[in-house]
Amino acid sequence: MPDTAISPTRAQDYPEWYQQVVRAADLAEQSPVRGCMVIKPHGYAIWERMQTILDRMFKETGHQNAYFPLFIPLSYLEQEAKHVEGFAKECAVVTHHRLELGPDGKLIPTGKLEEPLVVRPTSETIIGAMYAKWIQSWRDLPMLINQWANVVRWEMRPRLFLRTAEFLWQEGHTAHATSAEAVEETLRMLEVYATFAERDLAMPVVKGPKPAAERFPGAVDTYSIEAMMQDGKALQAGTSHFLGQNFAKAQSIKFASTSGAEEFCWTTSWGVSTRLIGAVIMTHADDDGLALPPRIAPAQVVLLPIHRTDEEKALVMEACRKLQAELGAARFGDEPIRVKVDAREMRGGDKVWQHIKQGVPIRVEIGPRDLASGAVSMTRRDRGPKERVAVPLAEFATRAPAILEEIQRGMFERAEAFRAERTVRLGSAAEVHEFFGAGEGVGRGGFAHVHVADDPAVAAAFDPLKVTVRCIPMEGDDEPGTCVVTGKPVPRRSVLARSY
Amino acid sequence: MPDTAISPTRAQDYPEWYQQVVRAADLAEQSPVRGCMVIKPHGYAIWERMQTILDRMFKETGHQNAYFPLFIPLSYLEQEAKHVEGFAKECAVVTHHRLELGPDGKLIPTGKLEEPLVVRPTSETIIGAMYAKWIQSWRDLPMLINQWANVVRWEMRPRLFLRTAEFLWQEGHTAHATSAEAVEETLRMLEVYATFAERDLAMPVVKGPKPAAERFPGAVDTYSIEAMMQDGKALQAGTSHFLGQNFAKAQSIKFASTSGAEEFCWTTSWGVSTRLIGAVIMTHADDDGLALPPRIAPAQVVLLPIHRTDEEKALVMEACRKLQAELGAARFGDEPIRVKVDAREMRGGDKVWQHIKQGVPIRVEIGPRDLASGAVSMTRRDRGPKERVAVPLAEFATRAPAILEEIQRGMFERAEAFRAERTVRLGSAAEVHEFFGAGEGVGRGGFAHVHVADDPAVAAAFDPLKVTVRCIPMEGDDEPGTCVVTGKPVPRRSVLARSY
Repeated sequence: MPDTAISPTRAQDYPEWYQQVVRAADLAEQSPVRGCMVIKPHGYAIWERMQTILDRMFKETGHQNAYFPLFIPLSYLEQEAKHVEGFAKECAVVTHHRLELGPDGKLIPTGKLEEPLVVRPTSETIIGAMYAKWIQSWRDLPMLINQWANVVRWEMRPRLFLRTAEFLWQEGHTAHATSAEAVEETLRMLEVYATFAERDLAMPVVKGPKPAAERFPGAVDTYSIEAMMQDGKALQAGTSHFLGQNFAKAQSIKFASTSGAEEFCWTTSWGVSTRLIGAVIMTHADDDGLALPPRIAPAQVVLLPIHRTDEEKALVMEACRKLQAELGAARFGDEPIRVKVDAREMRGGDKVWQHIKQGVPIRVEIGPRDLASGAVSMTRRDRGPKERVAVPLAEFATRAPAILEEIQRGMFERAEAFRAERTVRLGSAAEVHEFFGAGEGVGRGGFAHVHVADDPAVAAAFDPLKVTVRCIPMEGDDEPGTCVVTGKPVPRRSVLARSY
Repeated sequence: MPDTAISPTRAQDYPEWYQQVVRAADLAEQSPVRGCMVIKPHGYAIWERMQTILDRMFKETGHQNAYFPLFIPLSYLEQEAKHVEGFAKECAVVTHHRLELGPDGKLIPTGKLEEPLVVRPTSETIIGAMYAKWIQSWRDLPMLINQWANVVRWEMRPRLFLRTAEFLWQEGHTAHATSAEAVEETLRMLEVYATFAERDLAMPVVKGPKPAAERFPGAVDTYSIEAMMQDGKALQAGTSHFLGQNFAKAQSIKFASTSGAEEFCWTTSWGVSTRLIGAVIMTHADDDGLALPPRIAPAQVVLLPIHRTDEEKALVMEACRKLQAELGAARFGDEPIRVKVDAREMRGGDKVWQHIKQGVPIRVEIGPRDLASGAVSMTRRDRGPKERVAVPLAEFATRAPAILEEIQRGMFERAEAFRAERTVRLGSAAEVHEFFGAGEGVGRGGFAHVHVADDPAVAAAFDPLKVTVRCIPMEGDDEPGTCVVTGKPVPRRSVLARSY
């Protein structure tokens, strides 16, 4: 056994550490199709947890799910010029609809399409086309629809979960009668994402609008939540866009208002993706592998039976089943506690380390001696791997919700403390250069709160550092100042960072 | 108001009736992308119900979900010759990965791929490639994975839900150490589908193996569940395939057995799709529109407040909220009863008819007079639209589970009686020609149980009637006989029908 379960460590080689955590936790791997990943059962189970929680939040805020076509005609993308510039670069293009088997056993594409189709990189245009048909009057508004789907953006240098050609996401698309309502919706969904990130993923985020250069193509305003990874870089974990009337005008999404006048709708869109799994890894994993916040852990507790004889096995397995049932009847966050009994026959040490690397919050070993003493041996993923606590068996199910709550809160607080340590306020461009000049990697960089204007000169000034303005935080740090690059007055600081 | 809410009626023009039911229930519509549908919120909510129930059944039988790439390299399809013949005909082929904006504002596909990619029509080949990597020894078996995904099979004559270029489905893919285990899995999942169809969709099915000509390309055996639609045609509602070692050999899916010998795995695959929504429509809808079995109805009860004055409104709305809470605390099939309060301001008659056309099982009108008398006015989708029953308000939530159960069972029994009426046993080819010779449409055709051999001569004999052998029922009708076409002895009857 090396000193750490993951090699290299974060400090040694952060990007490689990330790949090794993904591999050791059995979350995903590259597929034979360039840029596309396979999400393995453990990774997909985490995504299902995220879906379940978010889907409930979307429905509670009045949204319904629907499903729109995978393919978008080229002409649709051409309608919104800015959208094209931003998105049309790297797409999968379908040009044929048939294959014929050649005499050599090779397949040949035939049946050329009159108009090529693009595999959706996002669905504003195709959903907009439907909204133009569905929306007639103010009575049809607001239109509040979400879609869970796969999207494709061709990617030459993929990284599992963070940047892949195909990924899974949800995209909300709404249409409203007034600008104010659409802005309210944009901010409501930003808040849903922030709540989800902090409460469920135990990942503190900064939320706010992005500067013009970082906006979604065609949006009037793009808001994001930005989280700090353990190498100090920012990861954009969710976005919510106020699209104004731009898409509505490009696609004729109109309604008859209460006064009978024909007006263009105001639209929004918002999304999060499987990238969140990468964010969870880089927020919580350590040199022993993944660590999952209980709320999104597919199994919150794993029971590990220990026995030698058949007699011992019978006793121990019975105790495991009983404890599993008790935990299933207990509640954490309104849901039954999720328990797995791992009765596989393999070396105990290997089994324990597998669960450590997969990030299960609580491990409980149950053997004949534990049964005799009436106490089980608990280890927690947020503590050292050998830090055992004996818990009376009869009390375990009653105490488990509070322990899970403590782990969930502790993981958030640890991440928040880490971010606080690596967040600075800087007063000049020179300080920004000094802060980020030491290069990349663990222990360097972070979030710099700086007064900057929304101006191309700012982007240009920090481009050599690979630093961008991530967002203008809506909460805290609201002291006015002058831009450290242009000297223009600005109402509050922005967050500068390197990013994924 | 015409005599029926849907025009034309089933008897007048069955295919057009189907389209009108889909439209009136607001389930789906054709998109601007040829052959692709948009699944609207009500249709998608039904699919979500199906997913929830099936997903639980898959997990209870030991399966895990995962996600595999949308794209399949051409060379993968070429590996399994039979598979190619069956599937490679009508696929969406991606040939480029970039778009460039021409000077005229038109987009031009560029970045030609070295090897074209096919949008998955099904995932045996790409999943098989991963299994070949993942499976090393008998300890890795069985591999039991399911995927929820979109698939594409180019379709020139689409029909909503029944036949569309893109559709949503689940595909299970499993690998086993022995033939017996793989066959057992194949039949287990067939049974899961049959249980789901009969218990949840209230749709009786015949289950059994298909003749060779109707098998999945590359399968050793294909089993299906076949349901009878109201025009007497069969709809294949789910399939489960025993793939033998065919795919394992084509893709080198091998394992070291307990004796250390290297062996090929035995694999299966099984799937159901959004086609099931079409099956539910054609099993239960009538000339007034959709009728949903309670177990898959997104809303099982709709409460319709009736009021004139603001004072009445306050009282009635309060009663609605109270009843909604009581129903939400009651259980039907282990879940809270799903209730919607429809407080939209629109003409009462229009509102009621919208819920009839959308198939909500129970409608409850609550007005000031009902509150005064302490009884609400209930109408049921399985009864006439005007057939009102007064139910004491205080008892409604207690009685609702039994009423829902009665509706669920009644819908199944009605469908079963319909199928019994239209099922015949025939003893000669001439009788088959006579039975199906009257042509298509409501009141004609049905299921003919006939002794036929698994022989191309049988398919040829009934091809002019557009009749095929749907499957060889595994239960009932097990009397041996001789094939009415070839004279060969056969152990039991097969089901012949026209089909979707």
